[in-house]
Amino acid sequence: MFWVLFCLFLGACLGAGATGGLFPPGPWYRSLQKPWFTPPDWVFPVTWFVLYFCMSVAGARAALTEGNHYAMAFWALQIALNGLWTPVFFGLKDIRMGMAVIVLLWVSVLCGLVALWQVDVLAGVLFVPYLIWVSIAAALNAGVWRLNPDAARNPPPRPS
Amino acid sequence: MFWVLFCLFLGACLGAGATGGLFPPGPWYRSLQKPWFTPPDWVFPVTWFVLYFCMSVAGARAALTEGNHYAMAFWALQIALNGLWTPVFFGLKDIRMGMAVIVLLWVSVLCGLVALWQVDVLAGVLFVPYLIWVSIAAALNAGVWRLNPDAARNPPPRPS
Repeated sequence: MFWVLFCLFLGACLGAGATGGLFPPGPWYRSLQKPWFTPPDWVFPVTWFVLYFCMSVAGARAALTEGNHYAMAFWALQIALNGLWTPVFFGLKDIRMGMAVIVLLWVSVLCGLVALWQVDVLAGVLFVPYLIWVSIAAALNAGVWRLNPDAARNPPPRPS
Repeated sequence: MFWVLFCLFLGACLGAGATGGLFPPGPWYRSLQKPWFTPPDWVFPVTWFVLYFCMSVAGARAALTEGNHYAMAFWALQIALNGLWTPVFFGLKDIRMGMAVIVLLWVSVLCGLVALWQVDVLAGVLFVPYLIWVSIAAALNAGVWRLNPDAARNPPPRPS
């Protein structure tokens, strides 16, 4: 039963993560000034693969505990926000709205970590790398905003 | 506690649903041949608003039951896939990939309905309108594919 649940949560992660393949970093992103701590492009999919594994184990473990209501609600909330960031940032090229999404995501991951920890310590621990990575991603988004104020103020017109 | 959970699940719905406002139907969609049963544009946000309410009540009720593991896993899976369809269909204008996403969504909603029903009958009932609507949306996607084979075969180049 654990591995079936693991696969379902992993499916949710891949559904959210599919946006990363569908809206890849293109010339627009490469033309932006990036903060000094920006990792090379290949780091992102590798990191997400590891994080999806951890998040799915955490979800499956918590799903099997009693009193998992907040853990499960925050797990659902964070995956919806996770899947929203890429279409906003790389699809719409809207740096400021991306910042708003990633701040909400960060809060939902932090609350999820606490709620998971309360029902299953390992599940909570498995969300720690995720929180660290979203913190880095949020700092990247903020750095891109600061270094490219014009691009942030004037996202390209939305494709029709 | 119920209403806090309701708000968290509603937040997940709004996160997924935000893509509807970010990638609205534009000239490309209006230029397509539509099946005879296509509702007018305003029906979609109104329907989703009602469905999000039902889905959030279902999620909060199921979260508070014991043995909710499959219900919660499918709830998370369906919301991730729900948020993926709009960026694929209206963002990338990819009718065939949209069909693939909505078929996966339909299966996850059906499985979610069954899993919810098993822990809380009302939660399962609240997913019935959602399953009906996703069935209609899938039929629309299929109808658009059938009526616009060229647009389906040749989605516009992805914006860079």
